[in-house]
Amino acid sequence: MATRDDGGQPKYRRIADVLREAIRLGDYGPGARLPGENELMTEHGVARMTARQALGVLQTEGIAESRKGAGVFVRAFRPVRRRGVQRLSGELWGAGRSIWAADIEDRDLVVDQIAVTEEPAPERVAHVLDLAPGAPVCVRSRRFVLDGKPVLLAASHLSAALVAGSAITREDTGPGGIYARLAELGHEPAHFREEVRSRMPSQEESRRLSLSAGTPVMLICRTAFTADGRAVEVNEMILDSASYVLEYDFDA
Amino acid sequence: MATRDDGGQPKYRRIADVLREAIRLGDYGPGARLPGENELMTEHGVARMTARQALGVLQTEGIAESRKGAGVFVRAFRPVRRRGVQRLSGELWGAGRSIWAADIEDRDLVVDQIAVTEEPAPERVAHVLDLAPGAPVCVRSRRFVLDGKPVLLAASHLSAALVAGSAITREDTGPGGIYARLAELGHEPAHFREEVRSRMPSQEESRRLSLSAGTPVMLICRTAFTADGRAVEVNEMILDSASYVLEYDFDA
Repeated sequence: MATRDDGGQPKYRRIADVLREAIRLGDYGPGARLPGENELMTEHGVARMTARQALGVLQTEGIAESRKGAGVFVRAFRPVRRRGVQRLSGELWGAGRSIWAADIEDRDLVVDQIAVTEEPAPERVAHVLDLAPGAPVCVRSRRFVLDGKPVLLAASHLSAALVAGSAITREDTGPGGIYARLAELGHEPAHFREEVRSRMPSQEESRRLSLSAGTPVMLICRTAFTADGRAVEVNEMILDSASYVLEYDFDA
Repeated sequence: MATRDDGGQPKYRRIADVLREAIRLGDYGPGARLPGENELMTEHGVARMTARQALGVLQTEGIAESRKGAGVFVRAFRPVRRRGVQRLSGELWGAGRSIWAADIEDRDLVVDQIAVTEEPAPERVAHVLDLAPGAPVCVRSRRFVLDGKPVLLAASHLSAALVAGSAITREDTGPGGIYARLAELGHEPAHFREEVRSRMPSQEESRRLSLSAGTPVMLICRTAFTADGRAVEVNEMILDSASYVLEYDFDA
C-alpha cells in the first residue's frame, strides 16, 4: 500500500512533484544528479520503495534518466535544431552542400550506417509516388549519429525506373546529394511536404536509436514534388525526440 | 522468471512480436479487439502472466489500448491534420475565419475551456517577446476538444501593454481572432515560426488531455512576427500525439 499524506495523493507522487518543481526552478540543472534513494528516505521519512517510485515517476516522464551505478540525473535537452524550410531552399542544396548541413550548426552529425537497396514499394509509398503496388523502388537507408549517439533513421524511397543508372543508386550520391541528381535527371524538386507525428518507439527503433526509457520518437514523412506536382521522393524519418527540435518558418 | 524460447528472447516478447506483425499486416485493423489473455494462453501454451505481459508491451508502445472490462484494442490513429502553413495564410484569417477552421476538415474541434488572464511573463516568453522579465502579459489559455476528447492545450502570450483595451483581452476576440485584432492595432503578423518537439506528458497534462498510457505529447511553440521582425505573440501548445498529424508545405 502506498503511503499517503493528507492530500490523498500517494507520497511518492508528492516527492516526485517536489523534485519536478525543483528541476523546473533550476535547482537541479540539465545533467545534475538528483538526490538518491537514501537521501530521499532521510529527507522525507519514507521507505526505500517510496523513494524509488518517486524517482521512477520522473524517469517515466522523461525528465530524468538513470545511469547504471551512478544514480538518477536530470535529462539534458540539448537538441539539434532542424530547420525544415531553409534547409531545403535551393540556395543551399543548389550550391552543392548536403541538405543536412543546416541541421548541425556547430555539432557533428554523421552517417554511420548506409544501405542502398532495390525493393518492392510498400503500399503507402507506392500510393504517394503513384507507382503500381510492389513496383521496384530504390531505398536509401541511413542512420545518423550525433556526438556518438544515434539520433535519426531515414529511409528515402524513389522510383527505381526514375533513378536507374544515376548516382542515387550508389552510396555516395556526389555533390548536392540526391536533389542535385534529380535535377540533372530533369526531376528537380520544387515543393516539399513534411508530415510530423509522434509515438512511442518499437523495440527495434529503441535499440537502433539507443533510446532511454520514456523517450518517444518523432516521425517525419517528407515528400518531394517537381514543379508540375509529381512526387519523386518519399523519405520516412524516425527521430530521437530527446535530440531534436523541428523548426518551420513561413510567411503569413 | 520469464519463459524463454530457443531464440533467447522472453516468450512474452515473441508473442508481442506476432501480434504487432498481425496488426501491421491488417489482420487486426484500427479499433479491433486483440485476443484476450485466455486465448493467448491456449494458443501459445503460456501462463496468464506471460499473456498479460505480451499485451502490456503493445500498450506501452502505444499500439494498443486497454478498455476496462472489454479487453485490449488496436489503437485507431485517425488524427486531425493540422496544416501549419496554409492555416496561417492571410487569405484565411484575413477573411474573418478562425485560424483553427483549417484543422478540422469534417470533424468537430471546439474550445471547451478558456481563461484570459494577466500574468507576469515567464522568463522564456519575456525573452522572445523582448519584454522585461516579469512584465505583464495577456495569457489566453484554451483547451480544444475533438469528438468529445480533449486534444490540445494552448496558451497564447501577448504583451499586456500592446493589447490593452482590445478584444484580445476578452474571451470572444471577434471575427478573425487575435490576428485580425493585432492588424487593427498596427501589429499585423507577417511571419511565423513554429518549433516542434515531443516528450512524455506530465501527470497534469495527461489528466487534462485524458491520455492513454504510452501516449507522448507534441509541443508546438509558435511565434508571430510583424513585417519589421517584432515578435508579438508566443503560443505554447501541447497536443495529444494520438490525435494529430502536423503538415508543413513549402517551396524549394
